[in-house]
Amino acid sequence: MHDAGRSAAPLMSNPRADRVKEAAKLAGRSARLKTGRFLAEGPQAVREALVAHRAAVADGRPGVVVEAYATQACLDRLPELAELADQATLRLATDEVLAAMADTVSPQGIVAVCRIQSPSLDDVLATRPKLLAVMCEVRDPGNAGTILRAADSAGADAVILTASSVDIHNPKAVRSTVGSLFHLPVVSGVDFAELSSRLRTAGITILAADGYGSQDLDALQDSSALRRLAPVSGYLAQAPADAGPRLEDPTAWLFGNEAQGLAEDELAAADYRVAVPVYGQAESLNVGTAATVCLYASARAQNR
Amino acid sequence: MHDAGRSAAPLMSNPRADRVKEAAKLAGRSARLKTGRFLAEGPQAVREALVAHRAAVADGRPGVVVEAYATQACLDRLPELAELADQATLRLATDEVLAAMADTVSPQGIVAVCRIQSPSLDDVLATRPKLLAVMCEVRDPGNAGTILRAADSAGADAVILTASSVDIHNPKAVRSTVGSLFHLPVVSGVDFAELSSRLRTAGITILAADGYGSQDLDALQDSSALRRLAPVSGYLAQAPADAGPRLEDPTAWLFGNEAQGLAEDELAAADYRVAVPVYGQAESLNVGTAATVCLYASARAQNR
Repeated sequence: MHDAGRSAAPLMSNPRADRVKEAAKLAGRSARLKTGRFLAEGPQAVREALVAHRAAVADGRPGVVVEAYATQACLDRLPELAELADQATLRLATDEVLAAMADTVSPQGIVAVCRIQSPSLDDVLATRPKLLAVMCEVRDPGNAGTILRAADSAGADAVILTASSVDIHNPKAVRSTVGSLFHLPVVSGVDFAELSSRLRTAGITILAADGYGSQDLDALQDSSALRRLAPVSGYLAQAPADAGPRLEDPTAWLFGNEAQGLAEDELAAADYRVAVPVYGQAESLNVGTAATVCLYASARAQNR
Repeated sequence: MHDAGRSAAPLMSNPRADRVKEAAKLAGRSARLKTGRFLAEGPQAVREALVAHRAAVADGRPGVVVEAYATQACLDRLPELAELADQATLRLATDEVLAAMADTVSPQGIVAVCRIQSPSLDDVLATRPKLLAVMCEVRDPGNAGTILRAADSAGADAVILTASSVDIHNPKAVRSTVGSLFHLPVVSGVDFAELSSRLRTAGITILAADGYGSQDLDALQDSSALRRLAPVSGYLAQAPADAGPRLEDPTAWLFGNEAQGLAEDELAAADYRVAVPVYGQAESLNVGTAATVCLYASARAQNR
């Protein structure tokens, strides 16, 4: 039934139409700020946007997708997208229209204009989060995407970006999150001093991922594993009174700039500085790799 | 003294010189195959190449760097590069010459023509490796670089690429390894059937990183932590006879294609299929993220 409905809808074929130009403008920050919208490109990102949209509408929250545009060929290839899009406005468009809208050379037949979700720090803290990933001046869209994706995989409750970090809604960053952007709350533009004081008040341990940190992540994982796995063992009695942070406690990880690492004020605000051990000759870990290891260490300690 | 020597060397200023054209051709696979050379670009990669070169020459092995080219401005900014380059041939060149050689828009003032190191599988197995990272049809240069870098950080003994994987010496892949390419042996173009049989003969456990695997990486880490941390605990007695692989044993991890994952024959050749748990809504892990978590789990089990 809805198939017949869709094929009766007019095909968008004019790449110079206002609606097409407006979507294309979302590649720029000023248009995103002005409209509160951004563009998701390609089947994977649009699928996750549509799933998030459905859940939001079912919950009585504002929808995520304003309008999705797809070629008939794409819908024939991926009919589940047409199913998912029932509640959103899906319009058929030509390849030329999609190419004119998209930042990528080939958006693979589908894009969606989405509403920027902007939860506040208050919203996030009200959920009593156990695991947060904070990006402090992370500038590379690819790194930001990797960290957001790792946070999603590790089951983090939210991702927070300080004001000087990359705009997570720019097309390259959106692509590099591969749909994870729609899976968990992302708070942007946060002032760091405000953030650290709020985290402290909420009783959340702040851990700085820092190659020069005095706490060794492996040692913390060992302590945590012992508490969890061998609570009756005599080994625990050997632990010093302050053996460092407990990974199973509510935690916010701070991840720093790819070139400079965390700044002095960011390091100073942390309860502990934690180093991921480097076993080989690598000088340091890429921030995305370090974030993956840190977030998974916390997830393991908290979830099992 | 050597400063005086270098400033007396002729400045290369002709971007159309044969030597410049030959370096530029190394962006293509056929020139790399023909010459056995590749190009490292930028201070970080060239620094690691020069360090590896020095170590090789000191060991009586063939050098790594054939010739390095830098601008005077780059050497003024990073004088340690001039120090490191003593044993290699360092030539001064103009920005135009470097731009004509390099694949990147801005090679940041320094490039090096390097010899492709091609250790054999025999060479690697003769070192009795404890940890190997195997890329099976990993096609994206960025993913290959992330995996190589994670292998370096985790202290893996070597990285192996099967014949259908990306060429790790292509400019984008070299860049994405950020110097780790010079830190550990990389065996390329390996036939998978041959590889799996050789690994088996060498007594190395083959673990397939597979989202559908029946072994849970967290459970394996728990077992390993218990053996290591609480050997006298009664908890070990509860472990079933075949509790899966022991992460502390010599291990080769198989990482598959980014879209399809590991192929049937690759999965069949593995002793166990191991899944990295996904705690959030992410559909699956990026192969680079999964490799990081797997290699670090092994490193932790083997090194502490």
